[in-house]
Amino acid sequence: MIKIAAVARGDIPADLVIHNAKIANVFTQNYELADVAVYSGKIAGIGENYSGRVNFDAKGRVLIPGLIDGHIHIEDTMMTPANFAKIASLHGTTTVFADPHEIANCLGMSGLEYMFKASQGLPVDIFYGAPSCVPASEFETPFDELDMNAIKSMFERNLTQHLGEMMNFPAVINGDTDAWGKILAAGNVPLTGHAPGVTGKNLNAYLSSGINSDHECTELNEAREKLSRGMFIMLREGASFNDLRTLLPLIRENPLNAARCMVVSDDITARYLLETGHMDAKMKIMLSEGLNPFIALRMITLTPAEYFRLYDRGSIAPGKIADFAILDNDELDETFKINSVWKNGRLIAKNEDSFHIDETEHAAPAIKLHVKNIPTTEQIKINPAGKIINVIGVTQGTVITKTLQVPFEDAKPENDIAKIVVLERHHDTGRFGVGFVHGLGISSKGAIASSVAHDAHNFLAIGADDRSIITALSKLAEMGGGLVTTEYEKITGSFALPIAGLMNCLTPEQTAAELAKMDREAEILCVKIPNPFMVMSFLQLSVIPELRITDLGYVDITKGGIQKLFVR
Amino acid sequence: MIKIAAVARGDIPADLVIHNAKIANVFTQNYELADVAVYSGKIAGIGENYSGRVNFDAKGRVLIPGLIDGHIHIEDTMMTPANFAKIASLHGTTTVFADPHEIANCLGMSGLEYMFKASQGLPVDIFYGAPSCVPASEFETPFDELDMNAIKSMFERNLTQHLGEMMNFPAVINGDTDAWGKILAAGNVPLTGHAPGVTGKNLNAYLSSGINSDHECTELNEAREKLSRGMFIMLREGASFNDLRTLLPLIRENPLNAARCMVVSDDITARYLLETGHMDAKMKIMLSEGLNPFIALRMITLTPAEYFRLYDRGSIAPGKIADFAILDNDELDETFKINSVWKNGRLIAKNEDSFHIDETEHAAPAIKLHVKNIPTTEQIKINPAGKIINVIGVTQGTVITKTLQVPFEDAKPENDIAKIVVLERHHDTGRFGVGFVHGLGISSKGAIASSVAHDAHNFLAIGADDRSIITALSKLAEMGGGLVTTEYEKITGSFALPIAGLMNCLTPEQTAAELAKMDREAEILCVKIPNPFMVMSFLQLSVIPELRITDLGYVDITKGGIQKLFVR
Repeated sequence: MIKIAAVARGDIPADLVIHNAKIANVFTQNYELADVAVYSGKIAGIGENYSGRVNFDAKGRVLIPGLIDGHIHIEDTMMTPANFAKIASLHGTTTVFADPHEIANCLGMSGLEYMFKASQGLPVDIFYGAPSCVPASEFETPFDELDMNAIKSMFERNLTQHLGEMMNFPAVINGDTDAWGKILAAGNVPLTGHAPGVTGKNLNAYLSSGINSDHECTELNEAREKLSRGMFIMLREGASFNDLRTLLPLIRENPLNAARCMVVSDDITARYLLETGHMDAKMKIMLSEGLNPFIALRMITLTPAEYFRLYDRGSIAPGKIADFAILDNDELDETFKINSVWKNGRLIAKNEDSFHIDETEHAAPAIKLHVKNIPTTEQIKINPAGKIINVIGVTQGTVITKTLQVPFEDAKPENDIAKIVVLERHHDTGRFGVGFVHGLGISSKGAIASSVAHDAHNFLAIGADDRSIITALSKLAEMGGGLVTTEYEKITGSFALPIAGLMNCLTPEQTAAELAKMDREAEILCVKIPNPFMVMSFLQLSVIPELRITDLGYVDITKGGIQKLFVR
Repeated sequence: MIKIAAVARGDIPADLVIHNAKIANVFTQNYELADVAVYSGKIAGIGENYSGRVNFDAKGRVLIPGLIDGHIHIEDTMMTPANFAKIASLHGTTTVFADPHEIANCLGMSGLEYMFKASQGLPVDIFYGAPSCVPASEFETPFDELDMNAIKSMFERNLTQHLGEMMNFPAVINGDTDAWGKILAAGNVPLTGHAPGVTGKNLNAYLSSGINSDHECTELNEAREKLSRGMFIMLREGASFNDLRTLLPLIRENPLNAARCMVVSDDITARYLLETGHMDAKMKIMLSEGLNPFIALRMITLTPAEYFRLYDRGSIAPGKIADFAILDNDELDETFKINSVWKNGRLIAKNEDSFHIDETEHAAPAIKLHVKNIPTTEQIKINPAGKIINVIGVTQGTVITKTLQVPFEDAKPENDIAKIVVLERHHDTGRFGVGFVHGLGISSKGAIASSVAHDAHNFLAIGADDRSIITALSKLAEMGGGLVTTEYEKITGSFALPIAGLMNCLTPEQTAAELAKMDREAEILCVKIPNPFMVMSFLQLSVIPELRITDLGYVDITKGGIQKLFVR
């Protein structure tokens, strides 16, 4: 006799019963006042008069399915999976789909294995995609390339169930066998995409590969076209990129689109998690925009579960795993405050208190960062080989840069033009690229530097003077990665990220505090742009236009690759 | 360089271009006038100015995705898979999900292997479920039991991708390890259900097994409850059971339900296919009921594809297989006449002309029906062992029977009470059950008999006199199964079904003509009910209330099993 059936019938007691729950039903878009009986980690039944060994009175408050984030890079929170899961669970999250391509760039398969290991046994399910773009392009030098064979083996070893974002959209569109080989190696799984601004026949070409989702829509018409071509749309609402409000008309104009759209984080910070929240924050935005709350809820529960082909979750229904949360309130409204969260029928978070994990169990990966070949101030000095140079133009609020052409003699801090140096850090080759950047507002002295710099995460320093830059790079090397601010030979601020130069073992509170401290130190150096470390982290990302810099020098993907410093 | 990407970009010619198509987009619920470029069996691109090696001008007529039937028993058309596919393709069908439990009852795994083999290479994709209920209950005797190990091996051998309808809902609800073992053996696949009238905590128990669809809803509230519990609803519109109109308010009250509801055939006949159509017939009904045509179309394309986790079809979009059809018309309206059909980019049907299959390639299974042990008239004679007998009460228009209690002396043809005999046919044991049936209107002489009798398909004869019954059973044995009408020793009509006693190799036209002939012969015997062979085919089906008859005698599942002939 199968016990869960007996529990469902009401013949034997459940493990747990949530009594008097106002269930938010994502199938009917209605409330239902009932008990929910749980047995062996699954929902056995919904109805009246269930009894359990453990009984919890919801007192008519709303019960929602556990929330699901369909796309996030955990490394970018600078926290370990455990610490991320801890804070996410407080916000009602029970399942996350993460693309670990940051650590894959830094440590290859060992980095991925660390992430898998560090996520095992956590009370939040983290499903990692196979990173499809390591390196993001041939103009970046990661620790190692993850080729189609590596992708294949990740699926064969059951480490992954979906392909991570295929960022190299030009390669897919051009029918490049390397990019297509990775897609085909993944096989019949959700193939997640990344195709900013791709449209028309190029979009056809991208989709002819089988890729079927995108989280890079920033305009409504772009999203409409992608929807019409069969893509699932991930409406991104992160710490810096906020597309949710822009794209919500998609759902308003056709509620059926809620079955093809989900809301995702992509990049969020410890501070965002602490101050704004996680998927609950997205829900609040949708509610404040007047969206039907059940339809909004579907997009952060059932739809991502279905997209990722996890049929055991995303709703409160018999046979599903018992992932759910009770709100403080008895309505789905803008307060949307999570009170208690259950994962597989186990209470994992209540009020401000989450589960406890012994972080030592999930020790950092064995491979440490060892950089000894630091250039000298002499080596990063630019000899005038012409009159006009290319300069990276940064504009606040967008990840897109511009290519500026400036007389070499004007490349000075007083014109808001600072030197930028990228130092290869994975194999200690000493290879570096030098250029200039405009728009950060760095003053007459000092430098800021970081080992978090998408996607290859080579050391990046920006400074008003060469001494401060070299001091900063040396400090990064000494710490094994992190964030640094310097003034000549003085370290004015530092925040070590010992795990692959990307993450640490600190709590969300500690991480946020360290970051805030670093931002203040940057401000003292007259860096005028908010979140300077996040802004600079995108300056290496070769797959985004226009001018970028890597250890190979300037890169402009729209112009076919490597660019010279001196134009003439 | 990957060629489909080049085709998609418009750089090299496609294999086929459908020009000037008015594409019915199931994602946006809109038309789009464009070309569709096909390469290597897949849709490469949608847009303007594609050129192909083959070009087809749609002249602005509507292009729809290939239609999908989410649930059908092909054996019940009495045609082979090839002949079924031929007529179905003319009606725009390109994919079918079939439960081969009829032949599984008759020939076990060999029967299934015949169906798989007979469907290979057909231009309509037929995906068979693993029959979950062979026998349907312990009160039926099929050729062989398909146990949980057989189910497991079907999945291991990749013969199937879903579990066929779990009809034994009482067993699932009761937590029976045999039924649950089959469900668990199927694993993480679509588990199709069959739960007529199951509600409340019993429904919870049924669903706690992971079963997630149902095609047995006959009432709106039943369907609403099942939807609210996470089930996909298959709205059935067959030859005899017509639930579509009843259930359409589900979609009208909430268009999002179109993502959770599909339309299916379950049981249709050759005549229905010829005269009414296939999925196009369902579409016409939905359109005549005023449903949004794009939403209606979604329920016979995208939704079943997604439910069955076939992400390569159900829409016209880049990367999907090139399954589509052109209508005669330039609007999705009630005419909904299919003009031309493509499967994997190949034209398979145009106007009234479909593909040609050499039926000998798909030879019938090796196991033949050999029944020698026919009872004598003496043996089926009833000795009065009491005064009152149970009689099966048949009512026109419903599959549910009633239990009537009748004085034995009144059990005569003039009271519309005929003798009914079920003879075990799979192992020639000679075992038979005898009873009486009211409501068919059989006259003073003659019998009708059939080897099509759900689910065990033992021989079933109903007659006014014993001689006609025995003649009919003998003729069934001689033919190796089929349909028979007799008058004493004379065969007045016969239609052989040599494949498992269920199917023949005739065309739809021939099959329909033979059936019509047999219906006329039954009429001559004063059988008053329409489609008598179909009506009698359900009288053995032990899982439907109330009184049924098998070779073990009377069965009433609601009363726990075997019932006596004489009440007192």
